[in-house]
Amino acid sequence: MSRLIHQLQQQLIDLKSNKLFEVSVIFIIIFSALLTGAKTYEVHGALDTAIYWLDNFITVFFLFEITIRLFAEPRLLDFFKNGWNIFDFVIVVVSLIPIDGSETALIARLLRVFRLLRLVSIVPQLRILINSLIKALPGMAYIALLMFIIFYIYGAVGSFMFGEINPTLWGNIAIALLTLFRVATFEDWTDVMYETMEVYPLSWIFYLTFIFLTAFVFLNMMIGVILDVMQKEQKRYDQDLVEQEAEEVHWIKQEVSQLTNKLDKIEALLQSREK
Amino acid sequence: MSRLIHQLQQQLIDLKSNKLFEVSVIFIIIFSALLTGAKTYEVHGALDTAIYWLDNFITVFFLFEITIRLFAEPRLLDFFKNGWNIFDFVIVVVSLIPIDGSETALIARLLRVFRLLRLVSIVPQLRILINSLIKALPGMAYIALLMFIIFYIYGAVGSFMFGEINPTLWGNIAIALLTLFRVATFEDWTDVMYETMEVYPLSWIFYLTFIFLTAFVFLNMMIGVILDVMQKEQKRYDQDLVEQEAEEVHWIKQEVSQLTNKLDKIEALLQSREK
Amino acid sequence: MSRLIHQLQQQLIDLKSNKLFEVSVIFIIIFSALLTGAKTYEVHGALDTAIYWLDNFITVFFLFEITIRLFAEPRLLDFFKNGWNIFDFVIVVVSLIPIDGSETALIARLLRVFRLLRLVSIVPQLRILINSLIKALPGMAYIALLMFIIFYIYGAVGSFMFGEINPTLWGNIAIALLTLFRVATFEDWTDVMYETMEVYPLSWIFYLTFIFLTAFVFLNMMIGVILDVMQKEQKRYDQDLVEQEAEEVHWIKQEVSQLTNKLDKIEALLQSREK
Amino acid sequence: MSRLIHQLQQQLIDLKSNKLFEVSVIFIIIFSALLTGAKTYEVHGALDTAIYWLDNFITVFFLFEITIRLFAEPRLLDFFKNGWNIFDFVIVVVSLIPIDGSETALIARLLRVFRLLRLVSIVPQLRILINSLIKALPGMAYIALLMFIIFYIYGAVGSFMFGEINPTLWGNIAIALLTLFRVATFEDWTDVMYETMEVYPLSWIFYLTFIFLTAFVFLNMMIGVILDVMQKEQKRYDQDLVEQEAEEVHWIKQEVSQLTNKLDKIEALLQSREK
Repeated sequence: MSRLIHQLQQQLIDLKSNKLFEVSVIFIIIFSALLTGAKTYEVHGALDTAIYWLDNFITVFFLFEITIRLFAEPRLLDFFKNGWNIFDFVIVVVSLIPIDGSETALIARLLRVFRLLRLVSIVPQLRILINSLIKALPGMAYIALLMFIIFYIYGAVGSFMFGEINPTLWGNIAIALLTLFRVATFEDWTDVMYETMEVYPLSWIFYLTFIFLTAFVFLNMMIGVILDVMQKEQKRYDQDLVEQEAEEVHWIKQEVSQLTNKLDKIEALLQSREK
Repeated sequence: MSRLIHQLQQQLIDLKSNKLFEVSVIFIIIFSALLTGAKTYEVHGALDTAIYWLDNFITVFFLFEITIRLFAEPRLLDFFKNGWNIFDFVIVVVSLIPIDGSETALIARLLRVFRLLRLVSIVPQLRILINSLIKALPGMAYIALLMFIIFYIYGAVGSFMFGEINPTLWGNIAIALLTLFRVATFEDWTDVMYETMEVYPLSWIFYLTFIFLTAFVFLNMMIGVILDVMQKEQKRYDQDLVEQEAEEVHWIKQEVSQLTNKLDKIEALLQSREK
Repeated sequence: MSRLIHQLQQQLIDLKSNKLFEVSVIFIIIFSALLTGAKTYEVHGALDTAIYWLDNFITVFFLFEITIRLFAEPRLLDFFKNGWNIFDFVIVVVSLIPIDGSETALIARLLRVFRLLRLVSIVPQLRILINSLIKALPGMAYIALLMFIIFYIYGAVGSFMFGEINPTLWGNIAIALLTLFRVATFEDWTDVMYETMEVYPLSWIFYLTFIFLTAFVFLNMMIGVILDVMQKEQKRYDQDLVEQEAEEVHWIKQEVSQLTNKLDKIEALLQSREK
Repeated sequence: MSRLIHQLQQQLIDLKSNKLFEVSVIFIIIFSALLTGAKTYEVHGALDTAIYWLDNFITVFFLFEITIRLFAEPRLLDFFKNGWNIFDFVIVVVSLIPIDGSETALIARLLRVFRLLRLVSIVPQLRILINSLIKALPGMAYIALLMFIIFYIYGAVGSFMFGEINPTLWGNIAIALLTLFRVATFEDWTDVMYETMEVYPLSWIFYLTFIFLTAFVFLNMMIGVILDVMQKEQKRYDQDLVEQEAEEVHWIKQEVSQLTNKLDKIEALLQSREK
């Protein structure tokens, strides 16, 4: 029986690596996304039923596909060692939640939207892209913390000072932080400012220093990221150069030592005749 | 008779390469653009008639010019092997549509606007610029796809959740995508947010994560493009350096082998005397 | 007695360098920030009292901590030679202002917000970040001056020309500068422009030249900063390269001088035999 | 008498190069700017008179200063060979226009604002900055032309299509270009779009392609400028490197030719003994 299982598994592996199978998975993912889009329109009658059954078909297909990939693994648990596999598994399992119950209907619908994310896990170039984006994150960590400190201090000050002028904008620190983010995106920030300037005529200092500080720190974050990426590039390039140079130096050393050897021989010859 | 045709073609080639002819074509293109601009103003009487006849003159002139360039080609079909020639040909042919029919009047007018694009095909520096811009596009393909996936998922979620709050902004996925693009350009995005926050107080998470994600991916796209251009530059520069270095290494090798030869001769001299 | 003091100081130094002590200080700073945030919400009864006492506790704790660090210094005044220490000292001393007096209550509250800034002085990575940000400032000085000259000239012109059209936006040069900053952030700038265009139809020239000038100078500021940072990087990298190359050149020189020595010896041998 | 003139001129040159004189000119320029600012406020009585006389004093002082610099020149016309001198001269002469005539009062006032620009011509660092900014312009010329072509085509199309929907925004090509610039700065662009979408539901294509095209071309302009500046830097750095390398290569060549000479001598010695 063990042989039978082994045979079956081999067939699963073959199916999994099949180019046609992969392409059809991509096709189904895109189709699923289009279906999700279609569901945002008001549809009635036959079309509604069709969407319902197509949706179920996609859910079953994804379940089928993930099962194949799960069992194609020599050891079942190895499947979960790859982050992208876990990602796929969670998306597929989560979309099994029935869409009928009126309570969970919206949630189930929302979760099925994320099936489009499977495109990222199945197209290698997108996977590489996401990995490199994630790698860029830690380099931003401390500057993001600094940005948050600036926001928090201005949020607290704004909330203390302007809280009574306009509670909708400055009522508490959470609302104030949202207002500050709005100011940072320059979205109607003068309306916010003019309102508080009626009470505190000097409050433009608050807004201008905030804008300058965030813009300056943001600019430095950008420069930091660009520089970071370029340094990595440079390092890789330098290593190539160093290796190439090392080769040349090696060649010169060899040549020189050959010359030295020759001269040693000549010297020996001369000295032997001396005697 | 074949000789007559050949003679005529030679004259066409001479005309085509004539500096004065080229300059007058550029002049006519700019004049055509100014005429288009003039047509956007309300004009009456003689001026209107003048514009009408000038417009016809330009159409005929362009037809005349493209015919010259077409027949100046040794083999007629070679003309269409150059993308810019096809571009010119389509623009000229399309502007032949008569402007009188009330139905097609607007379309004909619009199409004649594109005659200004011929400036791009006739000024070499602009042609080079466009070519280099087009070359920059493929490097953005996957990151644009990723951006679209983010937009699509947020569009679907936004349409499901906020569709009933404000159908003008979130009615279906197409409208929702437009609204999201608006949010991404920070254009009155807080108005959109405040509206949905009245129903879902936590919906600021939706907007803030969307803004951070798109800004972050966009930043990486920019860095990617800058890096890409710089790498190409670096590669070209490295090749120069490598060639230069190769020359030097070659010189050193030659010198060393001469030294070795000399030493070989000396050794031979010494050894011959040994006997 | 002097020995007793010395012993005590040694204990203070040990405490100061204690990892647990440092972590608890960071924890208290963050807790203080959260408390500040909490104070922006309307709270009553027991919670209000709790916040009051917790606030006092933090004030005392910070006083205690700064005293330890002050006396842990071998010579008391050395403590004030470090800018970050002065920074900490001022923040702690300033938050000693009693929060009860109705007059100074708001100011005392505001000043306590800045205790979050102590996070910057205590986390080394943030300290480095701030130092590098401050280092980037002088490189911007002259371009900032140029920007200010542009703003000032446009502010004066705007105030002279549009002052009577809308005194709220152009009343005097200070207000005009604020309006120009608004235009530079593209915040409802067309509303400002359309208003003045009703009186001076050509005033769009004022706004467009201003936007182009500031955008252009800002772009150059950005490029300047990026370039500056990269040059510093390059210089450091070059120094490494030069040192490495110097080593190689040194090696070659040594080898060649050895070769020369050998040849000298051979020549001497030959010449000695000549005689 | 010629000796007297020469002596006087020497004194003028001494005065011109006097550090105190230069500093006081800078001081007067800044004071002049502050005075211009003060004039934007409503002032009455004594203060108004004071400003009037101070203004006249500054005009006379500048006239005096430019005269000194003019006559300090060995040959009078050499003064006008320097662009910055012409710039200063024009500003000073232009501010001689009397401010009293009610007709020209505003113009005279406006022209005096530009006296602040003399700060640029007198502070060397600002002069260098401006020169380098001007040098960056030609690199942008063709991409700016391309940008203008895009604007012009969209302006003509927008004017033809939307001219009747809202003549204030799309009435003719000049107004349409201004509206497009507004769209390009994302300033209430959705209001513009929603209005035309009511008549042409597909007109979002017009706006989105326009935004993408301008953003894309602008991005490439920025990259172009950054790259241009970096290439110049690189070239200068390369030249340094090449020179340094050339020195080393020269050293090696010398050493090798010395070795060759030595070997030639040895060979000659050996051969001479052969005979």
